[in-house]
Amino acid sequence: MVPHLVTALTGPISELEQRILESVPAVERWFRLEWMEHTPPFYSSVDVRNAGYKVAPVDTNLFPGGWNNLSPEMLPLAVQAAMAAIEKICPEARNLLLIPENHTRNNFYLANVVQLRRIFQAAGLNVRIGSINPEITEDTLVRLPGGEELLLEPVIRSKYRLGLKNFDPCTILLNNDLSAGTPGILEDIHEQFLLPPLHAGWSVRRKSHHFKAYEEVAKRFGKMLGIDPWLINPVFGHAGNVSFAQGQGIEALQETVHTVLGKIRRKYKEYGIAEKPFVAIKADNGTYGMGVMMVQDAAELASINRRTKNKMSVIKDGQQLSDLLIQEGVPTIETIQGATAEPVVYMMDRYVVGGFYRTHASKGADENLNAPGATFLPLAFEPEHILDAQGHPTEPLPNRFYMYGVIGRLAMLAASYELEQTNPEAEVY
Amino acid sequence: MVPHLVTALTGPISELEQRILESVPAVERWFRLEWMEHTPPFYSSVDVRNAGYKVAPVDTNLFPGGWNNLSPEMLPLAVQAAMAAIEKICPEARNLLLIPENHTRNNFYLANVVQLRRIFQAAGLNVRIGSINPEITEDTLVRLPGGEELLLEPVIRSKYRLGLKNFDPCTILLNNDLSAGTPGILEDIHEQFLLPPLHAGWSVRRKSHHFKAYEEVAKRFGKMLGIDPWLINPVFGHAGNVSFAQGQGIEALQETVHTVLGKIRRKYKEYGIAEKPFVAIKADNGTYGMGVMMVQDAAELASINRRTKNKMSVIKDGQQLSDLLIQEGVPTIETIQGATAEPVVYMMDRYVVGGFYRTHASKGADENLNAPGATFLPLAFEPEHILDAQGHPTEPLPNRFYMYGVIGRLAMLAASYELEQTNPEAEVY
Repeated sequence: MVPHLVTALTGPISELEQRILESVPAVERWFRLEWMEHTPPFYSSVDVRNAGYKVAPVDTNLFPGGWNNLSPEMLPLAVQAAMAAIEKICPEARNLLLIPENHTRNNFYLANVVQLRRIFQAAGLNVRIGSINPEITEDTLVRLPGGEELLLEPVIRSKYRLGLKNFDPCTILLNNDLSAGTPGILEDIHEQFLLPPLHAGWSVRRKSHHFKAYEEVAKRFGKMLGIDPWLINPVFGHAGNVSFAQGQGIEALQETVHTVLGKIRRKYKEYGIAEKPFVAIKADNGTYGMGVMMVQDAAELASINRRTKNKMSVIKDGQQLSDLLIQEGVPTIETIQGATAEPVVYMMDRYVVGGFYRTHASKGADENLNAPGATFLPLAFEPEHILDAQGHPTEPLPNRFYMYGVIGRLAMLAASYELEQTNPEAEVY
Repeated sequence: MVPHLVTALTGPISELEQRILESVPAVERWFRLEWMEHTPPFYSSVDVRNAGYKVAPVDTNLFPGGWNNLSPEMLPLAVQAAMAAIEKICPEARNLLLIPENHTRNNFYLANVVQLRRIFQAAGLNVRIGSINPEITEDTLVRLPGGEELLLEPVIRSKYRLGLKNFDPCTILLNNDLSAGTPGILEDIHEQFLLPPLHAGWSVRRKSHHFKAYEEVAKRFGKMLGIDPWLINPVFGHAGNVSFAQGQGIEALQETVHTVLGKIRRKYKEYGIAEKPFVAIKADNGTYGMGVMMVQDAAELASINRRTKNKMSVIKDGQQLSDLLIQEGVPTIETIQGATAEPVVYMMDRYVVGGFYRTHASKGADENLNAPGATFLPLAFEPEHILDAQGHPTEPLPNRFYMYGVIGRLAMLAASYELEQTNPEAEVY
């Protein structure tokens, strides 16, 4: 089930949404059976784009920030889901060490850390924050504008365990996506639960692996529901060894872009969609919306300017960009107060616990909204009925957040497939 | 974790409550470990009495009605917990048959059935309502004052399975406490999940078994927390073969009452409590607050009037009363708008999903509130902070519903012990 949140959608319900809404029992049962075979990621968030004719995930985050953007009513759901996750993985847990990103001056990010601490404390754990930032060499108290305090403590590594001064956790929760590579201090920890596993970090993870797994999930789900998987799956391709700065690998990239655009064009024709196809070219290992460009024609890549070259060369934490995902661009039909919007779905264990809209006033429906200037709009719970003029409840309102919750969970399931396939310890069995 | 609900408590936090609030991680871990060994009842509700010096469960219901009294904000929590319960017990479930009580004209009860249907539908099941009322021989559509419709369908029994016309459920959820005995139509169902099991019905279940199990739970929890178990455990005794109508078994009953009152008196002395001890005499297999009387002195039982005799002779569904529980009376310090109040805690699987106050304007702090004239007051979620005059959040508010959630879960755990001990199929292993 997916909480009933107020979406900005007011238009008619599309055929796809109708199909999903009338199939709730079958959809939920399908997920239940999948979770018997696969372990959901500990937590995740998924950016979803709804083009009306299709709805698809465009990014799946296994170290979600932004928990502070969920409305307060959703906290109990997140806590209950956190309890379920802890119970399953490490019921004996007492102490949880939360390892945040290294940027210690971003108050929005730190508010997210405070919210995660709140969730796991309410779930019944002693939570402390351990920094792996080399600059944090002593206890550092940060006071946030909201009045909250956050104590960042330097982690202490012994031969087999990671902890803090006078704090020996049984579970270590990473909220640091390891873009800069897996630090040695996190390696060879076998006595403690390290969540998510290290190979979920962006120094190992590849978007193209994720969307390959998602393609498989979409096919199986589409078959169950009796729909063309393309309606929930963005076409994609992959190009390696690309350097915009040195003009290397551009031709192969153009070829892939051309192929992906062709596939989209055929689908648009099949469904009578009049829009102009485009692709998002993204760092295969990138995050934070960095290293993303939109292209309508492969020829554009022959003459990109210096600024774009720079943008496409270096991503988060100074990583060089060389592997690229070429993903079908899915326009968004959602707007809020005139700003382009896309839903972000938050999950803890197998449960959808909330969501919000990412909005951007100066970006179009076919642009990347995860860019400077984006704002976040928490979603409220929708009352199940609206009262009519006589004060009687009307027909129950459809849960229009449900479809987004389904897409979010499909992407989460794909992440679960992906982590199984890329598990370095899998050969042991 | 327990949702943070607004309680009526405004007085200072008692030593006991303080002890519980400062031990959240230890308490939650203790429950997690218990649930590794024991299976929680599918759903339950617990009446709790808070005397200030002690807090105790006084009744544990394994077929909870009153789900309609939970506030709408709690629905998502109940749904998420229902998903967890279904996933664990019968992940392959598609169809759920809900069997309600036989009273088909009680709109309050029927609103509860509608709410349960809503919860399990949102959890992703096809839900239909099957009546075992012999008067329901054809489909009966009931329209509730709120505009909701409820279709009661007669159940159909085949040799091995129970269902409805064109509806073969894999799971049967009882919301009928089987006070009148287990109907043959529910017996020998081995292919379908029947929840809760038949031996949870009041024709088999005994309050004295429950409170014996609760005593054990309270001892173990008290030891972990370092508190006297009496602070959370009502003293009790049991008397069998009592007939008030025929004056039978009264002396033995008086002796038990005397013993229980003596135990309470000693505890009152130990803690310097000035109140007058009393006991609640209750049908050992009763429910609905029927067959309950309060006694301060065993001598009172020698001269009870005809009206009380009648009250104590027949309970729900015309069952004869003969086995009695003699339970320490726990006064309630909670009042709402001048009416005496007691919290009722609702649980689904191992999770506290909500609660409400049962209030009664014409009953005292030492009386049974589960009586005609009682009203129900849904509890709202408490914001975590109150804003000060400058609009800044103050210190986090303590979750005063937490303690009630702990007591509710201790009673639920006791029910789990009780059902294990009374399981007729347990010898098989």
